[in-house]
Order: sequence, then structure tokens, then C-alpha cells
Amino acid sequence: MKIVIKNAWILTMNEKMEQFQDGYLVVDDGKIIEVGPMNLLPKGLAFDQGFDARGAILLPGMVNTHTHIGMIPFRSLGDDYHDRLRRFLFPLENECMNEQLAYTSGKYAIAEMQLAGVTTFFDMYYFEQQLAEAAEEMHSRGLLAETVIDSVTVDVPVPMGGLQYAEGFLPRWHGNIRIRATVAPHAPYTNTIEVLQQADALSQRYNVPWMMHVSEMDFEMEKYRKERNQTPIEFLEEIGVLSSRLVAAHCIHLSDHDIELLKRYDVKVAHCIGANTKSAKGVARVQDLLSAGVTVGLGTDGPSSGNTLDLFSQMRLFANFHKTILQDRGAFPAEEIVKLATIGGAKVLGMKEQIGSIEAGKQADFILVEVDSVNMFPIFDPYSVLVYSANAGNVRDVFIDGKQVVAEKQLVNFDLMKLRAELTSAMEECGFKRKALKAMEGK
Amino acid sequence: MKIVIKNAWILTMNEKMEQFQDGYLVVDDGKIIEVGPMNLLPKGLAFDQGFDARGAILLPGMVNTHTHIGMIPFRSLGDDYHDRLRRFLFPLENECMNEQLAYTSGKYAIAEMQLAGVTTFFDMYYFEQQLAEAAEEMHSRGLLAETVIDSVTVDVPVPMGGLQYAEGFLPRWHGNIRIRATVAPHAPYTNTIEVLQQADALSQRYNVPWMMHVSEMDFEMEKYRKERNQTPIEFLEEIGVLSSRLVAAHCIHLSDHDIELLKRYDVKVAHCIGANTKSAKGVARVQDLLSAGVTVGLGTDGPSSGNTLDLFSQMRLFANFHKTILQDRGAFPAEEIVKLATIGGAKVLGMKEQIGSIEAGKQADFILVEVDSVNMFPIFDPYSVLVYSANAGNVRDVFIDGKQVVAEKQLVNFDLMKLRAELTSAMEECGFKRKALKAMEGK
Repeated sequence: MKIVIKNAWILTMNEKMEQFQDGYLVVDDGKIIEVGPMNLLPKGLAFDQGFDARGAILLPGMVNTHTHIGMIPFRSLGDDYHDRLRRFLFPLENECMNEQLAYTSGKYAIAEMQLAGVTTFFDMYYFEQQLAEAAEEMHSRGLLAETVIDSVTVDVPVPMGGLQYAEGFLPRWHGNIRIRATVAPHAPYTNTIEVLQQADALSQRYNVPWMMHVSEMDFEMEKYRKERNQTPIEFLEEIGVLSSRLVAAHCIHLSDHDIELLKRYDVKVAHCIGANTKSAKGVARVQDLLSAGVTVGLGTDGPSSGNTLDLFSQMRLFANFHKTILQDRGAFPAEEIVKLATIGGAKVLGMKEQIGSIEAGKQADFILVEVDSVNMFPIFDPYSVLVYSANAGNVRDVFIDGKQVVAEKQLVNFDLMKLRAELTSAMEECGFKRKALKAMEGK
Repeated sequence: MKIVIKNAWILTMNEKMEQFQDGYLVVDDGKIIEVGPMNLLPKGLAFDQGFDARGAILLPGMVNTHTHIGMIPFRSLGDDYHDRLRRFLFPLENECMNEQLAYTSGKYAIAEMQLAGVTTFFDMYYFEQQLAEAAEEMHSRGLLAETVIDSVTVDVPVPMGGLQYAEGFLPRWHGNIRIRATVAPHAPYTNTIEVLQQADALSQRYNVPWMMHVSEMDFEMEKYRKERNQTPIEFLEEIGVLSSRLVAAHCIHLSDHDIELLKRYDVKVAHCIGANTKSAKGVARVQDLLSAGVTVGLGTDGPSSGNTLDLFSQMRLFANFHKTILQDRGAFPAEEIVKLATIGGAKVLGMKEQIGSIEAGKQADFILVEVDSVNMFPIFDPYSVLVYSANAGNVRDVFIDGKQVVAEKQLVNFDLMKLRAELTSAMEECGFKRKALKAMEGK
């Protein structure tokens, strides 16, 4: 099936950062085969489907490098509480989370991402088999990582049993075109050295990235300093698990030596500016990371920490926070930020050969952002518009592997209200709302 | 005309912060006459128009306390340049800005605000007579302040001639129900002491707020320190122009003594977190201001500094910045931020008796935020949802003085594409785009 997209303002995000203000794109069999300015569109080109972009901005599908898609039910619950994790999230998760709730939440979250122009994500939660099924069903691209933690979890009855889960889970998706299964130790401090090494070995065996929260919490930094006179990253180096397959989420607290190590081992960083600053944890040293040559992408974190799963709000927060921290309004011009949200994320996930830019040979994951809404005018710089003016609601059309999953701001193959009803019903079944409201009462 | 709104999740923003999860609102002759829970809706109440809110969140129209609505043409132009003001904005303004461009930009900007749920704004620009006409035509509530600055401007051929303009402008709108005209010295350092005192006197004569950029720039702080060993606010006190009528925009750099002075004279503060942090200028001490009892509202600044004119992005940036600066995730819970965007802004503009909350006797300025979009579920705390999940695109219906100006996300009496065409045509007439692109070429 050959599709031709015409009349788009194409941001290729290729190495030269080429853009075609009036451009065309040809997709065949799920791959990009041509991109260029309209005046070079071959006359008489045969195709199966023509698509008039009507001036929309076309860019690569965005890549959300860190999220927890099973957690939609927790959104807007106790956001501003100091003890939110222990008071709301953990007890409710323990009491309520189950296969059906995770699955229906996953589908809803994937719908939210697709509607916001996120075509690829890296998830870390429980019931990842169900979440992978949700992603496959919805035709999203995703890396799904089963959490490993030193306690009994909602899907595995033994501490750190997530590793065993992952051992079965990874081969099940091996070779899938869009879905890859992997493993995610929750954090260095919630796992044994052996488990961390086994997780790394597992990711090596299947040649997939793995993920872990690293250098996120104050107490984490303090613990490693006190117990080992090390940073968490120095500890991870010592036990031999730093590699180009590791995606370290957050990395809020980094020493210069940490940055050197991340570079030396080519560890990738998933930067979650929204969640990190909402929880007052701080701002990661992204400029220093990039200057050192470390690969960085953007992540939303889960819907209870970052609240929305779109990268537009992350890009805006990124710009304002990093400019302010660096006391430099010229730092991180908008196009650098759009890079992080697209090709940067693709590199973090080890997928830069497949996605992240609009180039012949890559998979046809791309989005169209309409320019008709009131906030989208005028456009002197499309990157500026994406970072400073646009919101998730401006995403109009989304294609993954050349297949349209969002058209005119609606899901093509799913009914959002039905997805919501299924999630609501799973929440009702476990008494989620009742229990949540009860937990809030005591405030 | 009596209107009844049913089935809304009403956030009254009154002193008790009452909310009715399933509430009704009765409006008569442009004023709120009743609000309460649906089960108390009087049976057989006669009305002219019934309106089913379908579960939307109903809150007071938002108040944008500082903007420059004539500047839509400059949006996305040179955002990340250090010398942006001198390189792009001033030259283009001087060459291009005229009555028609200001007027068409004003209408477009007011449309943008209405579509985003902003029902009242405080503007500061040139051609304010035309901007006031635009606001009246579009049935918005606004304070429009003519700029006074020590140079020839686009609408007045003598330095500080804006004051004389204002002297004619203020009485023209005196007594208007929604529009008030006033004066805005650009900054302390761009006016003489006499002009600042005359502006204050003018605002006193007509009993309207006046506005000025205060303590915004590093060089401003340095200048007053060097020349007078004072802060700008200490200088303004000395020359006798601090009063409850002054709305000081930005106030990024404040000493403890400044905060005492702002409180003592009941000066109001328009806090523009988005513009201030995008330009890396810093974060105003809002928690200290509020603790001292100073009245604070939110502002977007102009579309070239803040990019969008909605308060949703400001609320999100506000939450994340202030929590991070204060290193306290519990600081400024979401409801406090929604307060700043509504009743806080009303107080800043001296209009708390008329607007800012849903209470009997106030003008019927209110908005409905739909809860059907993917990002609006679930809702355990509606304030959290407004601050952390919602965007301007979720605003569905907007009423000003009981008249609906936005219905189902569309302007009721205006065609957005026509407003854009008018603005585009005014931009073309003065060669705006050509000159802008030329200025960008040399980058």
C-alpha cells in the first residue's frame, strides 16, 4: 500500500535538520520511501491513497522514553501530598491492581499517547504481558518492561519475582515488529546486586534495552554515599551493569563523574522534567549530559506523577526550566527540544535506525499537527510553535508503520468512550474509586 | 433573560471554596442569582434557556492580569535569541505596527483568550482605543492601558505622549460596563518622575487600576541600586506612586523590604511565570508575597513572550516552578493555583465584587471545561485536573455577563478563520512577514 502525503510543513529531524515548508512524503508498505518539496513530487506517481495535509506540520512520531501506562486510575489522586506514595498509591495498588485494571488502563494510556502524537513508548510497570497485548492491539510501538522490586507485587507473589516473570515474558515477544519485551529493576536500592546483574544479562541475551529509576531520590543518594561512599551510578558501574542497553530514568542528581560514566558506557537517560519538578525533586543536568555526549530523551513518567502522557507539555516545561536554571534564554532553542522528543528518544531506545526522523528507509511513524487552531498562528518558526504554543490537542493525524491510528483528532479503530467505560468498569470491580475517596477523606 | 445551567461540577472559588459535584447555576440579566447542588434546584423554576453541562467543570472565567494583545503578529519570531527585543520586536514594531494591525491582532488575541476560558484581561500596548473597541465588539471584559514610554511610539509622535493619549482615552470609556480604559507607564526607568506621578494621578481621578512593568530586568535593578541605592519599588514609594491601584507586572526581583512596601500600599502583582522563565529572568517570590498578604494574579504576558494567552499553561508552569524553587511538592496545592487564576486575578484588577467567583450577585462570567477528552479522566480532584492535566483546548463553553461567547469550542459570534484572514491581511499590508523573515535570515 503506497500513501502520498501532500502539502505538509515537514520537519524531517534528520542530521541536517532539513525542513520542507511545502513538502510531500511517500510511504510504501509501512516505510518511508521518499520525502521532499512539493515541486519535486514526481509527476504521475502511482499510489493507493492520497492525503492532503492542508498545511499541517508533519514530524516524526514522538517517543516517550519513560512511563507507567498501568497507572491511569491514579491520575489526580493526592497530587500535592507529601506522603502521596505511601498514603494513596501503594495501598491502592496493593488492594486494587489486577490484570484487567492494568490492561484497560494500558489501552486508555496508549490511546492518550496516540492522540497526543506519541507513537513509541518505554513502559515500566506490572502485568506487562497484558500491557504488551494492549500495545499490539492498538498498533503502537513500545518497549514494555516488567518491574523487579524487593517485595511481593500485584502480579508476582515473591520478592524480585519480576525477574522470573521477565524471563518468560521476553522470549514471548522476541521478533515482534513493534513490541519488545524487557525488564526494569525498580531502582538500584530495591534490588540485590545479583538481580541487577541478572536483569542486565537478560537484556543482553535478547539484545533489548532495559530500564531502571536511577539517581532520582534524595534518600537514594544519601544511602549510597553513607553506605559505600559512592553515587548510585558509581555503584552500578562497580557491579558491572552499565552499558548502552541501560535506560536510566530521571538521573536528577548527577556528579561530574557520573556524567563521565554515563558517557563512557553509553548509558541512555530518560529525562522527565514534568514529574521531577512537580514533585520538587530537581532538574537533571541535561545540558551537561548532552555536552558530554550522553544520549537523552524525554519522558512523561506515569499519569499519576506527570499527569498527562503527551510530550508537548514536557517540551514547554523543558524549555522554561532549563533556560531558567542556566540563566540563558538562548539555551536549548526550540529545535533542540523537538529533537529530544523525536530522534533523541529514538536513540535512547536504540531505535534510531527505525524511527525518530522522516527519512527514506525508516518506518513510517509520523504525526500531523494542525495549524488551524487559534494558538497556531503565525508560524515564523515551526519548532517554536511546537514547543511554546502547541498542546496535545493540536495533534490531528497519527501514523504508525504507515497505518493511520488517529484521524482528525479521533482514534481510527477504537472508541475512546468505550475504552473509558472498560477502564471505569475495571475500576469499579475492585472498588477503586470508593477506596481512593476514603483515602482522601482523612486529609 | 434567565438561564439555568444543570449538571455541572461547580467550583465556586468563594471564600469557603465550596464545590458542587452535581450542581446548578441560575443566571438572570447577566448576573448570577443562584448556585447550589442539583438536589436543591427549585422544582418548576421558570427560565428562558436551559443548558445541560453534561458533567463539565464549571468555574469562574479566568483573569489574565498582564498581556499585550496587539502583539500576535510577533508570535514564534526569534523566541530563543538573546537580542530578540532589539533585533526583531522593536524594528518590526516601528516599521509595521499601525491601527489596523493592532485592532485585528487585538480581536484575534481576545478570541484566543475567550476560547481558552479567559473572560477578563488587563492589556498594555499602543492603539488602546482600537483595542478597547475590539474588546467591546467581542463582548470581553477588559482593562486597556495605553503605554507611556520615553520615545516616539507607533501611535504617538512625542516621547511619553502616551500620557496625553491616556488623558483623552480614559474618559471615553468611563462608565462602560465591561471595558475600562487606563494608563501604563512602560517601566520606572523609561519615564520621568513627573510622568509616573501624573499617570498615578490620572488613575486616581478615574478610579481605575494602572499598570507598569516593575523589577523585571537585571539592568533595572542595577540602575536603581547604583544611581539611588534603592530598589525600583523603593524608588516608586519615594516618588509617591505606590497605591492599591497599581498593578506591578513581573516583580521578579524583590527584597524583603519591597514585599513589605507592596503590602503596606496594597500594590497588586501580575505574576507571569511562563514569560519570566522562558526568558530566563527568574521566578518571583510568590509564596513570600502571599504570606505577606500581597494580592497576586497570573498573567501570560504578550504572545511573543508567553506565546499563548491561556492560563492553563501558566498554572502548570506555576505549580512546577514554585514547588521546585521551594523544594516542597506540597507547596501551592492545585486549588491555590486555580484561585490565583480566578479570584486572585479579580482582586488584582480591583474587581472582586464583580467577578472571580461563582456567587449570587456577581456578573455571570463563567466557563465550562469538558471532561470527555482523553486527558480529563479520572477526576478525583477537579483542581488537580485543571492544573496538571487540562489544556486550553479543553475549554468548551464560555459566558461573559451571562452571554455565551464560546459554545462547543467555537466562537459564537465570530468566525476564527475570518479573524485570522483579517489579521493576515493587515500583516501583509505592512509587509510584516517579509520583514520578519528578512530579520531572521541574518541569524
